[in-house]
Amino acid sequence: MKKKKKVNAAILIIGNEILSGRTQDKNIVFITNWLNASCGINVSEVRIIPDVEKTIVKNVRLLSKNFNYVFTTGGIGPTHDDITALSISKAFRVKYGYHTGAYKILENYYGKKNFNDGRKKMAKMPITAKLILNPSSAAPGFITKNVISLPGVPSILNSMIENCKKYLVKGVKVHSKTINLFTVESNISKQLGEIQNKYKKFVDIGSYPFFRLGKIGVSVVSRSTSKIYLENVQKDLMKFIKIKKVKIIKI
Amino acid sequence: MKKKKKVNAAILIIGNEILSGRTQDKNIVFITNWLNASCGINVSEVRIIPDVEKTIVKNVRLLSKNFNYVFTTGGIGPTHDDITALSISKAFRVKYGYHTGAYKILENYYGKKNFNDGRKKMAKMPITAKLILNPSSAAPGFITKNVISLPGVPSILNSMIENCKKYLVKGVKVHSKTINLFTVESNISKQLGEIQNKYKKFVDIGSYPFFRLGKIGVSVVSRSTSKIYLENVQKDLMKFIKIKKVKIIKI
Repeated sequence: MKKKKKVNAAILIIGNEILSGRTQDKNIVFITNWLNASCGINVSEVRIIPDVEKTIVKNVRLLSKNFNYVFTTGGIGPTHDDITALSISKAFRVKYGYHTGAYKILENYYGKKNFNDGRKKMAKMPITAKLILNPSSAAPGFITKNVISLPGVPSILNSMIENCKKYLVKGVKVHSKTINLFTVESNISKQLGEIQNKYKKFVDIGSYPFFRLGKIGVSVVSRSTSKIYLENVQKDLMKFIKIKKVKIIKI
Repeated sequence: MKKKKKVNAAILIIGNEILSGRTQDKNIVFITNWLNASCGINVSEVRIIPDVEKTIVKNVRLLSKNFNYVFTTGGIGPTHDDITALSISKAFRVKYGYHTGAYKILENYYGKKNFNDGRKKMAKMPITAKLILNPSSAAPGFITKNVISLPGVPSILNSMIENCKKYLVKGVKVHSKTINLFTVESNISKQLGEIQNKYKKFVDIGSYPFFRLGKIGVSVVSRSTSKIYLENVQKDLMKFIKIKKVKIIKI
């Protein structure tokens, strides 16, 4: 069996509404979890940028070069501030115009009579793009080279994500284990550091303080592509947790 | 009176837990809203990157050069994966070591007996940094050149943010107005585009579809540093909303 490789991705959130603080982004967590669980693809960087053509073009080019895939969200609707499709055409110097397939889908969805200019705009994109079907509201997403463009509205994006799968090369999945402890970070930092150092090439150990339901604690999260190393780390963690008499919290 | 200038900032979220999809970021919305409301500072870009020294160094240098301020979150705690302070020292080639002021604060907070190596680590940073006091858990944030480093835990970050104010040059505030309409974007995209074009140098108009409480609608958000232009845009919007007989939703 051919061994799976590490495959990575970047997410490019395009939207003034996120940068202004008006809207809480929900797409990063969703895409990131879906990519890892369904495709074994690891998100290595996220950028949030404004609806400015020059900025979109520059970031699309750069991220497309540096990562296996780039997921863009936002800016593919019918209004004047939806400039993602045009910007991606410019980034890759591909002709921008009506995409035959997208035009047919939208004309069929709205009916010839109600297919106005705003709706037609959603069929404009790099004309050679591959389409990502949209079961919620018809207007498709699209793939240009290694850049996958999805809408910004979370419910619509969520309904489309499975349709991206057939275009993606699968990578090796990252597994994770979490232990929640009733302690503070500075009480366990020395031992955590030693275990991280022992497994540094194979497992990433992170520690995250939390305050929940009146409890102060630390989540120790181990992540690895190898289940065996992950088990070994868990054993080492449990050893010092017992010695230090730190209480484990079930949450 | 001296006219206020536009001041911008970038946010650099440092943390594997955000990139893995484990944790929903809450700091972007908070910092962005606070900067605009309290300081008239506009966030122009956000990046989320992993706990990797080389990546942190590169991004800190670049964002520090391109924006008036950079806010980093995460990676300033006591554990092995907290490498923000060291990375910022390297980015600016400033000596990394115990900061006299931070050491005193932490020693006083924990008491000499309980001031262990993990806790001492939180006093290590660029030794010439200015401190940002932390009323929640003592460990201070710090400012190096134009880079402000804050912790990743939202409740602690929120408690410290006012202490950044004295170090920031204030900019001109962006005001915003929102009208929520009972319609779809493609029904109003033409008129919105015309109004945006009329005020293109002074007002940014964005339109955002929503599905809430069983209602489908569009939020039209206008943003400007000028209240007068903002009022003019609202008048123009109301004119065509009346003509088209689009219903306004109060939400």
